Amino acid sequence: MTKKNKIAQQVAGKFPYRRGLYEKPNKAKPWTVRQYAGFSTARATNQFYQKNLAAGQTGLSVAFDLPTHRGLDSDDPRALADVGKAGVAICTVDDMILLFDKIPLDKMSVSMTMNGAVLPILAFYIVAAEVQGVPPAKLSGTIQNDILKEFLVRNTYIYPPAASMRIVADIIHYTTRHMPMFHPISISGYHLGEAGATIAQELTFTLLNGIEYVKAALATGLKIDDVAPRLSFFFGIGMDFFMEVAKLRAARELWAEIIKKQFKAKNPKSMMLRVHCQTSGVSLARQDPYNNVVRTTLEALAAVLGGTQSLHTNSFDEAIALPSELSARLARNTQLILQKETGIAAAADPLGGSYYVEAMTDDLIKNCKDLMQVMTKQGGMMKAIEQGRPQQMIHEEAIKKQARLDEKKDIIVGVNDYQLSREAPIEVLAIAGAEVLQEQAARLKKIRGQRNPQEVVTALQALRAVAMQEKQIGLLEKTIAAVRARATLGEVSKTLEDVFTRYSTTPTITRGVYEKTLQDKKNFQAIKNKTATFKKSTGRAPKILISKLGLDGHDRGAKLISACFLDAGCEVVMSPLFMLPAEVARLAIKEQVDIVGISSHAAGHNLLVPAMISELQAGTLDKNIAVVVGGIIPDQDKASLMARGVSLVFDPGENINNILEKTLSLLPTTIGHNQPH
Amino acid sequence: MTKKNKIAQQVAGKFPYRRGLYEKPNKAKPWTVRQYAGFSTARATNQFYQKNLAAGQTGLSVAFDLPTHRGLDSDDPRALADVGKAGVAICTVDDMILLFDKIPLDKMSVSMTMNGAVLPILAFYIVAAEVQGVPPAKLSGTIQNDILKEFLVRNTYIYPPAASMRIVADIIHYTTRHMPMFHPISISGYHLGEAGATIAQELTFTLLNGIEYVKAALATGLKIDDVAPRLSFFFGIGMDFFMEVAKLRAARELWAEIIKKQFKAKNPKSMMLRVHCQTSGVSLARQDPYNNVVRTTLEALAAVLGGTQSLHTNSFDEAIALPSELSARLARNTQLILQKETGIAAAADPLGGSYYVEAMTDDLIKNCKDLMQVMTKQGGMMKAIEQGRPQQMIHEEAIKKQARLDEKKDIIVGVNDYQLSREAPIEVLAIAGAEVLQEQAARLKKIRGQRNPQEVVTALQALRAVAMQEKQIGLLEKTIAAVRARATLGEVSKTLEDVFTRYSTTPTITRGVYEKTLQDKKNFQAIKNKTATFKKSTGRAPKILISKLGLDGHDRGAKLISACFLDAGCEVVMSPLFMLPAEVARLAIKEQVDIVGISSHAAGHNLLVPAMISELQAGTLDKNIAVVVGGIIPDQDKASLMARGVSLVFDPGENINNILEKTLSLLPTTIGHNQPH
Repeated sequence: MTKKNKIAQQVAGKFPYRRGLYEKPNKAKPWTVRQYAGFSTARATNQFYQKNLAAGQTGLSVAFDLPTHRGLDSDDPRALADVGKAGVAICTVDDMILLFDKIPLDKMSVSMTMNGAVLPILAFYIVAAEVQGVPPAKLSGTIQNDILKEFLVRNTYIYPPAASMRIVADIIHYTTRHMPMFHPISISGYHLGEAGATIAQELTFTLLNGIEYVKAALATGLKIDDVAPRLSFFFGIGMDFFMEVAKLRAARELWAEIIKKQFKAKNPKSMMLRVHCQTSGVSLARQDPYNNVVRTTLEALAAVLGGTQSLHTNSFDEAIALPSELSARLARNTQLILQKETGIAAAADPLGGSYYVEAMTDDLIKNCKDLMQVMTKQGGMMKAIEQGRPQQMIHEEAIKKQARLDEKKDIIVGVNDYQLSREAPIEVLAIAGAEVLQEQAARLKKIRGQRNPQEVVTALQALRAVAMQEKQIGLLEKTIAAVRARATLGEVSKTLEDVFTRYSTTPTITRGVYEKTLQDKKNFQAIKNKTATFKKSTGRAPKILISKLGLDGHDRGAKLISACFLDAGCEVVMSPLFMLPAEVARLAIKEQVDIVGISSHAAGHNLLVPAMISELQAGTLDKNIAVVVGGIIPDQDKASLMARGVSLVFDPGENINNILEKTLSLLPTTIGHNQPH
Repeated sequence: MTKKNKIAQQVAGKFPYRRGLYEKPNKAKPWTVRQYAGFSTARATNQFYQKNLAAGQTGLSVAFDLPTHRGLDSDDPRALADVGKAGVAICTVDDMILLFDKIPLDKMSVSMTMNGAVLPILAFYIVAAEVQGVPPAKLSGTIQNDILKEFLVRNTYIYPPAASMRIVADIIHYTTRHMPMFHPISISGYHLGEAGATIAQELTFTLLNGIEYVKAALATGLKIDDVAPRLSFFFGIGMDFFMEVAKLRAARELWAEIIKKQFKAKNPKSMMLRVHCQTSGVSLARQDPYNNVVRTTLEALAAVLGGTQSLHTNSFDEAIALPSELSARLARNTQLILQKETGIAAAADPLGGSYYVEAMTDDLIKNCKDLMQVMTKQGGMMKAIEQGRPQQMIHEEAIKKQARLDEKKDIIVGVNDYQLSREAPIEVLAIAGAEVLQEQAARLKKIRGQRNPQEVVTALQALRAVAMQEKQIGLLEKTIAAVRARATLGEVSKTLEDVFTRYSTTPTITRGVYEKTLQDKKNFQAIKNKTATFKKSTGRAPKILISKLGLDGHDRGAKLISACFLDAGCEVVMSPLFMLPAEVARLAIKEQVDIVGISSHAAGHNLLVPAMISELQAGTLDKNIAVVVGGIIPDQDKASLMARGVSLVFDPGENINNILEKTLSLLPTTIGHNQPH
């Protein structure tokens, strides 16, 4: 390139790093292609990993199943429906050894998405490496370990906030001492964006969470220049192309300033925000799913132009099921094409200097600083999370976004405009849940039978002893010893739960935002008139229970639809998360609701929904409670759900007006005109 | 956006228009989604158009079949294999009327890719509009009418260069007088890039062609400010992301300067380069074809960020067959997603100011000016084309590119790296050639039977009289009168051919470039050794005839492979274009070749190749001439070609070394080790 360009590139690689961490791009080794994957058993996932690495993937990223996230062994009664579904089931060191079979852990950078059960999982990883002959010092990669965003939106926490923060700090402490090449935390904006946060919210809350982690780590006696260089970040990249580029640029500049000014770091590496990005799952549509290839390509490009160090591209069937062989390959190829065919890896920050992008970056930095100031004035992020304030802000943005989609102010091609008259069937990967469960249960039984029970008890008691003493460091160290003795994930988690307790919360739903955001309220008013008529004739509002089932914590949709039913004039009961089918049925009966709405996003619907209906039918005598389901339900499962008693199934992207109208038409008498009882 | 950005945007919409033609983007009406399409009959294509317009397409672009391009009626013996294959067959006004059935031509902008038979086709269009009650003054759209690039690379010329330029000027003259909203020419770089031109060559040659057209139009007595505002350009957008953006920016600046300085235009509209873009067909792969969705998305984005006014996105099965319903929809949705979901339509020239992109634009402008100067010094573009110089430059770049691919210096994912072990079958749209031909022949017979023969003869004589007088304007006017009397495409073309003659040329093949470009010559030397051995034992070099068949003029591949066989030590006969199967067979027998290599890219292979083999077998007594085929051959056709006597079929993207080695192993004796005769 010319002189002018060389001058421009000198600005990259220098504080405040808006233009990127490095002065010159590494063409030979650009960003890491790190596809997030995991399903069923360690053995099956290992085979998938080996295949992907052979086909051009350059890093691993482990998806764990929901029971693992929640610290439950596969044979726990609460785990039943979710084993091996949304990720791989890892209950023991032996599972972890199998997961990395033939994958040398001293050479492969491994990212693990784990927050709640982060102690046993990281301990498994360290001991599995030991078995390969690899010491902790040679391990490179990342563990997510970002519990604050779990409280904000993702809900795979186990213990209350304070105890959870203690675990995070313990891990940062241990890895800083023993694992110099390992990132002990991945401070994640991704899930905030997925839950509905604006780009400014995603960025601000994430950086504020980062500040909390730095403080917690410093409180264990570490120095900022020991801690900060090994923090890493994780952002989602959605469809607002240039804003997403600006987000990564602003993130680097804001973080560099925070670490330098607020924490007085001296080492330039401390100030460098390293980031893994994932293209947005929520931007993808179940409808006309090949369109998602286009979306993911654009998001991936934005991530790269924003200067990401590592990238996951979603499969086009993300909104339908687990990736098929084609969709996984196409997702990976999206990155390979970007790296090998487009020439974009040749430039550091090719958008640097663009009037538009620089102005956008300036604006975003200003907006984030304003929001940071507000949050700080109100007492900081920990307090805000405990009070549920950022949760509510994100929830409200999700509602507004939905109202814009329902009114076609925002367009998603194939979803709320340019729809297909008929969707084509698409090949999906089905998980044989029962078989996975059986295999895991058998393995667990065998391991429990072969180990030295006294050794396990002693190790878990030592862990308990550390946990009992506030501010005592050593949780990870004692967990490592316990899992070396073959303590299971569930046993470690239960030991800590006995000390810390298990956290539970009921979400707050915001009334009025949906209706207020609608510009044309005519159709919505018609629905409100119907509920008013119902109320007039029955003396009460229609009553609906909205619930998740099992361990599925994706509650954006459940909260959103609850808010819409509220605005439509219904009485809404929103159940706490993580209930068993029988518990939800009992709650519905106790609350005397007319309708139960189940939101499902973790592939457990085939087991959980019929079980809930059976309990409902067994528990009610003269009252017929209708059941509707929404979320990620593959087409081939719909008929069997209907046959088992579900009245309606709604796909993601369904217009709220349709959902309300069709659901309320299930009500008995007066307002039910489609299906009178 | 902020102040800074507003300042930047003031620069767009002003001479020299690097930053775009307009100061502010038209968010409500961004670029025109104009998908190039046409196949089989006017009736079938019309139905396809109506469906696409209903699904979000905003402009039409007609693809004509090869016989139409070459001025042959569907029932002409030379048309046989190509009727309705690569586009729609249009032989009469009545076909054109049917093509736009229920599509109001006063409202719909129509682009027609027509060069050779531009007179009858534009006349059909004008008369079809008349029948709809729409006068020429209300017609908006474009006709390609860029004959110079046909001589350069695309080969759908009919008459020699001088007569062809006279037709172009005649059309510019007529439309300037009578069709103020119509672009009488689309000066096209697309095909140059597809044929192998570098970006600087594509840009330079296209602008130089533009200068020739302006001169020709001025020579008919028009003024620059009448002519220039209605010229339009057409560029391809390949995978070199930022370079393609820079190309469109450089094109605007260079053209604005040429028109202002060289032609002394006063009207700003004269200086504004309006452009339609198409994503690159040659960048797409037959292998793992869903990867092409990713490629087309990136190319489409580059076109938009470069500031295109109109865009065609290729279907992902472009390299395999005509678009299927899914692939056509996905191609269109690629543009809709860019327009509706990404926010990029909100900014004029969002990359403006980028150090990288501006420097790249500067560099490209400089390179183009240098090349322009060289060409001008050597006597200008017309002379260069007649001497075949730019053709050879492009051919050499195509060879170099192939050598880089063969050595994996350039990567195409799924083609020369990250290949699939097994390709999945893909649904393709098959054209029932025989039925289309029958339908067209019947329609032609009917129309010839119903018209007034004397009226036709008189009208064609009037056209002939104008053609006979050099520099006389009125070719289009007389053609309109003739087609109004129902003269056919073939009759109009024949009338002009009798005066102008039909042009024919044999391509020049460059020796030595392929071998020289290879960095590691080991494998290639092994092949050369084999041909040397053959020569030693037989006293002559292996001899191969490389040919196209029928009307297919895509000769990049044929020229490229000829050059490689030459470098490998073979004697190569390259046949002229547009030969019938029997003519090619006769040439092969006369030249006593060992092998015939057929290159096919227009879907005529199933008819033409077996016909050629039959003639070959009928004409040879004791000698077995092997036949190999390369190009776009759907998998399902391969077995039947092999059964009819083809020895090898090569897909696009095949490594040259493999092609040479496998083909040469078909030779009898000494060097044939795989299949000894």
